[in-house]
Amino acid sequence: MDALLEFLTRFVSQLQSPTLGFLLGGMIIAALGSRLEIPDAIYKFIVFMLLMKVGLKGGMKIREAELSEMLLPAIFALAMGMLIVFIGRYTLAMLPNVKTEDGIATAGLFGAVSGSTLAAALAVLESENIAYEAWSVALYPFMDIPALVTAIVLASLYLNKKRGNGGESVKIWPIVKESLQGSALSALLLGIALGLITQPAPVYDSFFEPLFRGLLSVLMLVMGMEAWARLNELRKVAHWYAVYAFVAPLTHGLIAFGLGWIAHVTTGFSPGGVVVLAVIAGSSSDISGPPTLRAGIPSANPSAYVGSSTAVGTPVAIALGIPIYIGLAQALMGG
Amino acid sequence: MDALLEFLTRFVSQLQSPTLGFLLGGMIIAALGSRLEIPDAIYKFIVFMLLMKVGLKGGMKIREAELSEMLLPAIFALAMGMLIVFIGRYTLAMLPNVKTEDGIATAGLFGAVSGSTLAAALAVLESENIAYEAWSVALYPFMDIPALVTAIVLASLYLNKKRGNGGESVKIWPIVKESLQGSALSALLLGIALGLITQPAPVYDSFFEPLFRGLLSVLMLVMGMEAWARLNELRKVAHWYAVYAFVAPLTHGLIAFGLGWIAHVTTGFSPGGVVVLAVIAGSSSDISGPPTLRAGIPSANPSAYVGSSTAVGTPVAIALGIPIYIGLAQALMGG
Amino acid sequence: MDALLEFLTRFVSQLQSPTLGFLLGGMIIAALGSRLEIPDAIYKFIVFMLLMKVGLKGGMKIREAELSEMLLPAIFALAMGMLIVFIGRYTLAMLPNVKTEDGIATAGLFGAVSGSTLAAALAVLESENIAYEAWSVALYPFMDIPALVTAIVLASLYLNKKRGNGGESVKIWPIVKESLQGSALSALLLGIALGLITQPAPVYDSFFEPLFRGLLSVLMLVMGMEAWARLNELRKVAHWYAVYAFVAPLTHGLIAFGLGWIAHVTTGFSPGGVVVLAVIAGSSSDISGPPTLRAGIPSANPSAYVGSSTAVGTPVAIALGIPIYIGLAQALMGG
Repeated sequence: MDALLEFLTRFVSQLQSPTLGFLLGGMIIAALGSRLEIPDAIYKFIVFMLLMKVGLKGGMKIREAELSEMLLPAIFALAMGMLIVFIGRYTLAMLPNVKTEDGIATAGLFGAVSGSTLAAALAVLESENIAYEAWSVALYPFMDIPALVTAIVLASLYLNKKRGNGGESVKIWPIVKESLQGSALSALLLGIALGLITQPAPVYDSFFEPLFRGLLSVLMLVMGMEAWARLNELRKVAHWYAVYAFVAPLTHGLIAFGLGWIAHVTTGFSPGGVVVLAVIAGSSSDISGPPTLRAGIPSANPSAYVGSSTAVGTPVAIALGIPIYIGLAQALMGG
Repeated sequence: MDALLEFLTRFVSQLQSPTLGFLLGGMIIAALGSRLEIPDAIYKFIVFMLLMKVGLKGGMKIREAELSEMLLPAIFALAMGMLIVFIGRYTLAMLPNVKTEDGIATAGLFGAVSGSTLAAALAVLESENIAYEAWSVALYPFMDIPALVTAIVLASLYLNKKRGNGGESVKIWPIVKESLQGSALSALLLGIALGLITQPAPVYDSFFEPLFRGLLSVLMLVMGMEAWARLNELRKVAHWYAVYAFVAPLTHGLIAFGLGWIAHVTTGFSPGGVVVLAVIAGSSSDISGPPTLRAGIPSANPSAYVGSSTAVGTPVAIALGIPIYIGLAQALMGG
Repeated sequence: MDALLEFLTRFVSQLQSPTLGFLLGGMIIAALGSRLEIPDAIYKFIVFMLLMKVGLKGGMKIREAELSEMLLPAIFALAMGMLIVFIGRYTLAMLPNVKTEDGIATAGLFGAVSGSTLAAALAVLESENIAYEAWSVALYPFMDIPALVTAIVLASLYLNKKRGNGGESVKIWPIVKESLQGSALSALLLGIALGLITQPAPVYDSFFEPLFRGLLSVLMLVMGMEAWARLNELRKVAHWYAVYAFVAPLTHGLIAFGLGWIAHVTTGFSPGGVVVLAVIAGSSSDISGPPTLRAGIPSANPSAYVGSSTAVGTPVAIALGIPIYIGLAQALMGG
């Protein structure tokens, strides 16, 4: 009972954070027809800055880490990436008025990871002084790539079967490569590599770290405006997408939270690390995933999967997901 | 005599401020044909950053404010917005070689408010440690919207009469809505709302506040370059525009200063607040006003009103207006 | 022997700096096909910010400087600018498969100065606490403009002779003007002027200085990506360009280092100043030079000169040149 009360208290206090305020503010001014615009060049640069910051910090800390600790969370991340797509394949993609390949592509995007959502979660963890393994950000590709690969493979199997040519096989490596070359993963991995190999502390401390929260707040504003703009696209497709996009982030996040809790009990994975795992499972890709899916499942309708992710999935993952997982971690593990 | 001497001393010292240096520097390098260019995306983002900073601070402080204090200055702001347009209607718009609707549109733009000029004034007030009511920035829409509405209504009355169809009425609400949806007012009002409702102190203190002065200096540079570039457009229209654009900012600013001084004496409006009122009256809109006017008075020539405002009005409002009002406030009210 | 050992130790430690890490990182992710992109608007703004910072600091310090000290280094800079072009005219431009005007234009670009390379060198000098005359950044135009003028004059002489009309003379002033109006020199000179005349310390200390290292690291990333992208262009022209582009920066830098050392012995030019002179001689222009050359030697092939400078010259000047000159300065002059 106390745990529930504590969870609710903390959940409500999260709702007043500036991160969330900017996200909702963006949705509201877009809904009111504001002509405010954050130029695309700024948006791209902010995403780069945030992922570089997250990567550099991860890289600098991985040096000190016991890498064997990373094994179980990495396996869980990989399993979650595939599981999310299978869940979507056998729920959303089977529903009436949902084209099977559209449903699979949407599930793939929800299995893939959003760097912005991850950055928002890290900002909250840091402002709440909740420790997390810095290497946990490196779980990103372990979930992102398997999800996209699984979605493209499942869609190909389905489409081949429909067309009656079961023999054609799907090449995995081009999908992996395409994912790794995406702008978000490139920036994150480059940051990790530079953090690991060079001595970036001076630029990290004077530039990437101090600007992090502010840039994140601007990004949240853009994402809120974008979410509203995409709602129109979502209206054009079946209502099931909206239902899925609302339910899926929290379902995926809570399953991953459960797996993270197993790692917490067995190998001492920190409460903050459990939150990171839940957040990346609950997030859905807005930037890097769509081009890979467009290339891999060309017949799927981008309005369905991008609309679901940007208009509903990401706001739910940030506004509800992050405070829920943090509240749960504090209530269950005293994080 | 002492007051005059003190005023002159302070006025000259204002002329050496970096804000002004960047403004004049921009005009000079543009005049010398420099190919230096601050990309448009950066310019738009800087304007957003400055207005968000001003709004956030206003919003955070309004919580503590006695809102009844705001009443008289708000009424004065509204009156000034309308008065400025009437002054222009019966001076500039009656002059030879000035098309009546062009004159009215120009007066509308000079009644509307420039967020950049406001930001520049706040930077000077802060560097001089002159206190001002944080809610005074919220006077912006109280002057901006009535000015644009009055200009569009007066132009419609004139054009209807000329065309002999006096019956057609002008709809006010679309003009108000159009103004509120403009990028500058959107950013300012969103900032005020976020400052009021959320807890933005961490991002304000780590991001919006520290970057304020620097971004402002870059904005001044852009405005200087832009002013020079627009001089060519101004050359194409009657010389009266240049005369009006030089005289109007200071006239409007000084009238508003007088009204502010009444509020100072009667309700204790601070000297810094009087300066803010004078600055927003003396400023002319460069970003948000023009699209509203273009939609509301389509037959007016943008070269006339944008040229007047950007090439002469804004530099005069910043380079002469701000130091004059601050000097006066210090000499008269010991601000 | 000790000096050599000390030089090598310091040289290796320079290779671990974040500046270099970002440069190499940019080349590597571009080589791996990453779709990461820093928008052009951001790139242009970063270059502006760095040159404005360098200029402001130079301007603020020139006030305190004994300007007669500047005479000898300025003469050396001017001599180097012309000498570099003559060296290129009688080596690269005489080689087989090298079109004479292409070779001259390439030599002109290597004589011209790169603001980015200069900024990178200043960041290293500051992080190593090596003092340098702040006015030394003002040597930039003394080398840049003579190099471009000499290249265009030599190319015109050659082309006129080839066409058999030896009489046509080249106008020098338009070339000088074109150089001064370039974005890089404009920003640097405006910064120097503002530093000299206004009181920019508040914006310098709160904005330009703290962001310097971080923005530089992003710029290095862009330059690394750009260098890789330009390698393709370089492959289309004779291999001699690659050889020249590798050898020339270090040759020019070391000659200038020798001249700087003469100024050190005779007039007390600081070791840091000697490094600055060597760096600007070793650098080749990526931004401002090419348009001037395109206008001045229209028949020269930009793939040859831009490819040589961006793909090979600049990375060599930064990654090898800067640590070599600093190592030498410390070993020879105890800087």
